[in-house]
Amino acid sequence: MRFADDELTYDAFLGGKLRLWQPRNGYRAATDPVLLAAACSARPDQSVLELGCGVGTASLCLRSRVDVQITGVEVQPAYAELARRNAAEAGLKMEVLDSDLTSLPPDIRSRTFDHVIMNPPYYGPGMSSPNIGRDTALREQTPLADWVDIALRRAKPKGCVSVIHLAERLGDLIEMLNPRAGFIEIKPIAARAGKPAKRVVIRAQKGRASRSILYNPLVLHDGPEHRCDGDDYSHAARRILRHGSSLEF
Amino acid sequence: MRFADDELTYDAFLGGKLRLWQPRNGYRAATDPVLLAAACSARPDQSVLELGCGVGTASLCLRSRVDVQITGVEVQPAYAELARRNAAEAGLKMEVLDSDLTSLPPDIRSRTFDHVIMNPPYYGPGMSSPNIGRDTALREQTPLADWVDIALRRAKPKGCVSVIHLAERLGDLIEMLNPRAGFIEIKPIAARAGKPAKRVVIRAQKGRASRSILYNPLVLHDGPEHRCDGDDYSHAARRILRHGSSLEF
Repeated sequence: MRFADDELTYDAFLGGKLRLWQPRNGYRAATDPVLLAAACSARPDQSVLELGCGVGTASLCLRSRVDVQITGVEVQPAYAELARRNAAEAGLKMEVLDSDLTSLPPDIRSRTFDHVIMNPPYYGPGMSSPNIGRDTALREQTPLADWVDIALRRAKPKGCVSVIHLAERLGDLIEMLNPRAGFIEIKPIAARAGKPAKRVVIRAQKGRASRSILYNPLVLHDGPEHRCDGDDYSHAARRILRHGSSLEF
Repeated sequence: MRFADDELTYDAFLGGKLRLWQPRNGYRAATDPVLLAAACSARPDQSVLELGCGVGTASLCLRSRVDVQITGVEVQPAYAELARRNAAEAGLKMEVLDSDLTSLPPDIRSRTFDHVIMNPPYYGPGMSSPNIGRDTALREQTPLADWVDIALRRAKPKGCVSVIHLAERLGDLIEMLNPRAGFIEIKPIAARAGKPAKRVVIRAQKGRASRSILYNPLVLHDGPEHRCDGDDYSHAARRILRHGSSLEF
């Protein structure tokens, strides 16, 4: 199964520095994978594994910023195919594997990575949508505990696991990470100043003793409410989303 | 063992609404127990247990705001004695028990409470200070896991455990709370705007499914750095510390 060209859109990321093919009606990357890429502190030549890479948004945003060796795993072949196409058309080297993350190929299971990044599905099992691709990308068919366990297994000792998720899953994420990757950096992502965080980015370093850092929030939008007549990203968000900067914690 | 009067100071809290005797050289309450009291969402007539109540600062601040039935447990008899004296002189009813929290009296072990509040010691075992009282109040002689376990045992079903601690212990606290009290509200407390949180207030509701809320930080001080010529509390902090308001999450 693969998408026909008229089922796709070709969208600009990082202010046009990166363009990606995405299914018109499937799961469409917005800010979250871009923020995830920005939060990964990988240095040049380090190895990075993305679990559930979709069309490659987070991996290729990261690869646009830092010259890392990047590997993505994606369970839906049509999305994995798009990730390969996106990497090729962007001239960025990326290894993409078709695999369910709970049954990774032996080659991957024998390797560890300096960084593992992931943007797991946000919604639990429930009503299925008529769009299977979107449903798989958005719904938690593999439990979050498996994502965290597999990420921690594939990270090197002192390696870093970075994840973006709904802020409401912070407790679950920390419960799972803290015993095995205790140095936990938490960056709240709030839509507006003064509001609770909708999303949270967590970086956890494997094998380190427990010590958390709770940073000030990244506020995505200026002003108290959404303006319909255009993009109201804050200066800090714009630097990341439009100029490809890293996310300062 | 008790303090002589010349070993004590008589200090104003909540803008003078509450005055408390404290040891001049022992553990001295600053903002943390006041913030803890402000974070407790107890309603009139509900029961509240404070673990490690010291001279009663958090309990009596809370009791000044809401007409709750409050019980404090304190391992150091001289501090428990001061808590009783402080309650009596403030005209506030408070039950104070001399007890190590790991061996609570049967009467307490047979009771559960609508709210449990605590401000556990911040520093791990290490060099002991010449001041035993201060050392006991500041150092973690009882592991934090015991504090959390005992708080959860003493909370009613759907009861609330509120804790203030160093932000660096957030991971440990959530790891322990999330399996048993999954509805977790997190309020970061930052000294200055834009800085990581130094403290964190956590409210967790026992027996609820896991769902976290990560609120915007309470910023304690205005301006970028400390001014020596006076108190630079933010408006939000002043409302709590000087006017006895509750802490809005």
